[in-house]
Amino acid sequence: MRISELSAQTGVPVPTIKYYLREGLLPEGERSAPTQAAYGEAHVQRLRVIRALITAGVSIAETRRVLEALDDPPADAHRLLGTAHAAITPPVDESLDLTAAQEAVAGLGWKPGMCDDAVLHDVARALQGLENAGFDLANGALPVYLKSMRDVADVEIAGVPTESVEAALRYVVLGSVLVEPLLLALRRVAQQVASAERFGGADAQ
Amino acid sequence: MRISELSAQTGVPVPTIKYYLREGLLPEGERSAPTQAAYGEAHVQRLRVIRALITAGVSIAETRRVLEALDDPPADAHRLLGTAHAAITPPVDESLDLTAAQEAVAGLGWKPGMCDDAVLHDVARALQGLENAGFDLANGALPVYLKSMRDVADVEIAGVPTESVEAALRYVVLGSVLVEPLLLALRRVAQQVASAERFGGADAQ
Repeated sequence: MRISELSAQTGVPVPTIKYYLREGLLPEGERSAPTQAAYGEAHVQRLRVIRALITAGVSIAETRRVLEALDDPPADAHRLLGTAHAAITPPVDESLDLTAAQEAVAGLGWKPGMCDDAVLHDVARALQGLENAGFDLANGALPVYLKSMRDVADVEIAGVPTESVEAALRYVVLGSVLVEPLLLALRRVAQQVASAERFGGADAQ
Repeated sequence: MRISELSAQTGVPVPTIKYYLREGLLPEGERSAPTQAAYGEAHVQRLRVIRALITAGVSIAETRRVLEALDDPPADAHRLLGTAHAAITPPVDESLDLTAAQEAVAGLGWKPGMCDDAVLHDVARALQGLENAGFDLANGALPVYLKSMRDVADVEIAGVPTESVEAALRYVVLGSVLVEPLLLALRRVAQQVASAERFGGADAQ
């Protein structure tokens, strides 16, 4: 199909498609004439993934790394998650103190060597952000955070498809990125529901 | 204190402080001379909050709205969360279909009128993002997401300090924003731990 048809089928404007082509997110179509290229079903699928990632707040650079991971999956199933997370996690910050993070994630069943440095640094960075703001977690909140996130991860990892590495990687990469906004949005609704139950006036019940 | 001392005490460079002053995030100091202003402890506290929000990935515009909410809290405790969430949630998108979102959040104990439209639209947007990418949640994942986020919200709302509206709002606003990166980072570590347990080779155990 031509670029105008690709646009019509995906709802992505032609100038945006051309931008993704220039940024290397979308592979070039097959040249059918000097000024014309033909696009196929693979381009439609790829455009859907790009839009979903960018709408979820993933940057162009991170989207490129996620797509590279999808295009070139590691052979070892256990390495899939590391690849997926590396694509969407900021670089390791050597100056961070990991002690508090390691203590915290021990509550997830973590033992040394069980996860990439990048995600451990992410935990340390988040704890540092709370400390910098002088914010103390609610009493008993951390154990609930740990148990909840372990429950979430268990159901997610149990669902990893094993028929092919491609299917597994697609599930892991998109599941990591696209479920994040859902979890955060559900937390906000749950907070308002819990708040209505604790503090609510007549309008809330 | 002078701007150079404010910088030394908070670790925020002077040009960055001047940028926050121009953007209206930080109130002007008290003029002590035509080209000099004096800053106090309130500026130190405010700068810590600004840095924490921006480091957590909150935009300048959202940071401004969060700070405005902190400066002008609503009188009604139940309205605090709505104010906090409105500051950090994208505007309502009238074109979104809320049916699936309302069905989902019923599992949190939600009933109509219990939360702001903005957070409900956030859930709808997240579900739409999954659908647009053609991504199906793992079997049984949604009920676990709902239970986990309700458990998280319960311990957080139980911890809202009630000695003053200011303290409650600070807790709610910062807790909403700053805990998000922690939860997401813990989920990634938990995924790698669960993956190591399911798929792990010798190097993972």
